[in-house]
Amino acid sequence: MRLTAFTDFGLRLLMRLAGRPDTVLSTETVAREFAISRHHLQKVVQNLAAAGFVRTRRGAGGGVELARPAGEIRLGEVVRALEQEQAMVECFRADGGECRLTPFCRLRGELARAEAAFLASLDRTTLAECAYGGELAPLAR
Amino acid sequence: MRLTAFTDFGLRLLMRLAGRPDTVLSTETVAREFAISRHHLQKVVQNLAAAGFVRTRRGAGGGVELARPAGEIRLGEVVRALEQEQAMVECFRADGGECRLTPFCRLRGELARAEAAFLASLDRTTLAECAYGGELAPLAR
Repeated sequence: MRLTAFTDFGLRLLMRLAGRPDTVLSTETVAREFAISRHHLQKVVQNLAAAGFVRTRRGAGGGVELARPAGEIRLGEVVRALEQEQAMVECFRADGGECRLTPFCRLRGELARAEAAFLASLDRTTLAECAYGGELAPLAR
Repeated sequence: MRLTAFTDFGLRLLMRLAGRPDTVLSTETVAREFAISRHHLQKVVQNLAAAGFVRTRRGAGGGVELARPAGEIRLGEVVRALEQEQAMVECFRADGGECRLTPFCRLRGELARAEAAFLASLDRTTLAECAYGGELAPLAR
């Protein structure tokens, strides 16, 4: 079972922002700190902003910050938003996929139940409980 | 959240075999019936055989059959076996990955718990309960 690298990076960024809730961080700083591609991180920020988890500020001192209190953001909610276009198996695709078993399938419901259990488990924890203060690489700013 | 196409095909094949437990099916027949690549299906059969779910018979009338009763094979067991090399996020990789947050991360445990909930949900159902008898395309053999 895989989550996309975008979801992975998105969770890391949110944990980082939750660790310093009053700070605006530049994607350049975070990309360097995490040793990941700045370009990828910028796309992640766009997705997180579209989903209402972060907001961006332009100009000098600009960057990204949490749009909601970390204690109110549940992990399941984040994963649900970032993975919404990822179909677990073919028949979960928006277009229904091309699996020829679909009309007779008794597995689909079991997979949907299991996915719900996965997300419900993540919904028990908030971002605040996973906050990361940047211990590894203190901010230069 | 995604499972690999190999896991998807593996589950379909097992459901198909569970629907006719006394029948040996050729991969050619199943690939045609499911409208999927025979080459991919053969790789799936190799993985399922290595994991002890199916066995293969060579020669005329050969093919693939369940190695264990469908009622004793739990869905979670199948997904666990077929997805064992799929890391949910970077730090789940066998080599530990390169995420710089790993030593301080409080998310990893939450993701592991959620994955366990996903698999536990699937473990409540056996292959026999998802058997598919081939209604869509009756066997030509």
